[in-house]
Amino acid sequence: MTTRSPRLEIEYCTQCRWLLRAGWTAQELLTTFQKELGEVALIPGTGGIFDIRLDGETIWSRKESGHPELPELKRLIRDRIAPDRHLGHSDKQAGSST
Amino acid sequence: MTTRSPRLEIEYCTQCRWLLRAGWTAQELLTTFQKELGEVALIPGTGGIFDIRLDGETIWSRKESGHPELPELKRLIRDRIAPDRHLGHSDKQAGSST
Repeated sequence: MTTRSPRLEIEYCTQCRWLLRAGWTAQELLTTFQKELGEVALIPGTGGIFDIRLDGETIWSRKESGHPELPELKRLIRDRIAPDRHLGHSDKQAGSST
Repeated sequence: MTTRSPRLEIEYCTQCRWLLRAGWTAQELLTTFQKELGEVALIPGTGGIFDIRLDGETIWSRKESGHPELPELKRLIRDRIAPDRHLGHSDKQAGSST
């Protein structure tokens, strides 16, 4: 099966009813990275999973870090697929006053 | 890149701003076929595309048939991946009085 790269995967727990959270995350990321992302795949899972992978690399796992904040998630993705992009508000939350 | 099967793809035109339509369709289908679908991939496209593919087979193309109605779409998918499933309201709309 042919996929588009960069491929972002969001695997979410159906038992936890995280489809809407996953769908919202997908749409936020496709809005921000409209030209940079090849595809975003929503993958039903179980057991409390909410993992986000970019071309196979796990960039977020709820079991390790809790649910991601979108600005943090956008920075992680930006750094990998569009390092020169500025993210507006999402960048401003990155540091403190520096 | 490993994908999950059955893989449903929704390729939508970003110029037409169909992300929300695609995202809504994805969530509807993942709700109905929670256990049957391996993944749903949202794919940004251009030029008025709104195509839906199941494991590579195009089951809907807006340029041929206009935007899909969800009950019709669910029946097309059900027939392929869960032929014994009843779809409730979506089934009832299929025929006329027969």
